[in-house]
Amino acid sequence: MSKLPQSVDTIAFDADDTLWVNEVFFAEAEKEFIALMSPYMDEKKAHDLLFQQEMKNLSDLGFGIKAFTISMIETAMTIVGDHLSRDLLQKIIAIGKDMLHKPVELMPDIVEVLQALKNQYDLIVLTKGDLLDQERKLEKSGLVEYFDHFQVMSDKKVENYRGVFSNLGLVPSQILMIGNSMKSDVLPLLELGAHAIHIPFHTVWKYEHVEEDCEHQNFQRIKSAKELLDICMA
Amino acid sequence: MSKLPQSVDTIAFDADDTLWVNEVFFAEAEKEFIALMSPYMDEKKAHDLLFQQEMKNLSDLGFGIKAFTISMIETAMTIVGDHLSRDLLQKIIAIGKDMLHKPVELMPDIVEVLQALKNQYDLIVLTKGDLLDQERKLEKSGLVEYFDHFQVMSDKKVENYRGVFSNLGLVPSQILMIGNSMKSDVLPLLELGAHAIHIPFHTVWKYEHVEEDCEHQNFQRIKSAKELLDICMA
Repeated sequence: MSKLPQSVDTIAFDADDTLWVNEVFFAEAEKEFIALMSPYMDEKKAHDLLFQQEMKNLSDLGFGIKAFTISMIETAMTIVGDHLSRDLLQKIIAIGKDMLHKPVELMPDIVEVLQALKNQYDLIVLTKGDLLDQERKLEKSGLVEYFDHFQVMSDKKVENYRGVFSNLGLVPSQILMIGNSMKSDVLPLLELGAHAIHIPFHTVWKYEHVEEDCEHQNFQRIKSAKELLDICMA
Repeated sequence: MSKLPQSVDTIAFDADDTLWVNEVFFAEAEKEFIALMSPYMDEKKAHDLLFQQEMKNLSDLGFGIKAFTISMIETAMTIVGDHLSRDLLQKIIAIGKDMLHKPVELMPDIVEVLQALKNQYDLIVLTKGDLLDQERKLEKSGLVEYFDHFQVMSDKKVENYRGVFSNLGLVPSQILMIGNSMKSDVLPLLELGAHAIHIPFHTVWKYEHVEEDCEHQNFQRIKSAKELLDICMA
């Protein structure tokens, strides 16, 4: 574990599964959906079909619960065929809508960590997902006061980050990004010359899964947010 | 028509039906949907039900094509009942997805107007809708180069604008907002002390419809974007 260079003045946090629990709710929703499909198809196959449909829709619909809901409906159409009842359709849409009303459960020690970091850094949030849903989660989280900027991004590729940083007048070498996804929160940042810290979360969406080995002078992996204090505080 | 005060240094544009045509595509999509429902319900009633469903979903799903697609599906469930076939469902989802691939048709004289204004003002875009969809439309429009900032908002109420302006370090009295909706682009801005110009578009979503009479020293209504040159250019 090495100290952050003094040149870094901005810390960017991923939101889902970094500030608050998220993937657990998606995994639960998926499980409910698969259970609804169980009279028609075995679990593993239905699971694969749903993921395929999500990937097929990604370029059109992007990330978030609304896209996920439409993907569930289309997967059910494939699986159930012409016998998709109104009752079943209602249950599927309810799975999606219920996700929008889940409580926000903060990751351990987040408030304490943000409180400390705030004294020394500009803090921002960079997240994917539905705009309204993410704004609502930030509101519910009680974390608004810690952040100078909150940005929902349509994707988290190198060019998306480049756009955001240029918009905010930020220089990559002065930024540390913290998140649970190597693919979305770490690798694009390292490519841009920023710093990145990976805090793995026990549940990872298949889409975000990449080889986790990474050797880079600007990269560290830690177990929990609390370790940020040792790394980032003078 | 009166000259803009010299204190204004930032011009914010609404996007849909201000920079490019949008409501026409929604109206066409609605018409296609109503036609699909015509064996089951008369036009006027189906139209009303769809609008009711959209309003019911607004606080959960927000604005944009994905929310609209889910609302169409739920309306069809109400109208058709248990006999909603896969074929019909596929056609409804296709109406939504097709909207994402429409060409971007610029409003008259927009390029010329932006070109001129750019020399004297910071130009930004403030729009509602799906994040990814709006980013894609901006890209397709060829207008990216004219704008210093592009912001998709989850709603356009006073508090949403207040958040955006504070984030961008903008003072309302130095801002002119231009848009086609009194409700979303004009009234909240006047309330904040900003300036606003209304350019009506021939097709207005029922949700945006408010009494158009407005007497306010910071307000003007014009017929087309070209008139902006007389108002805004020194």
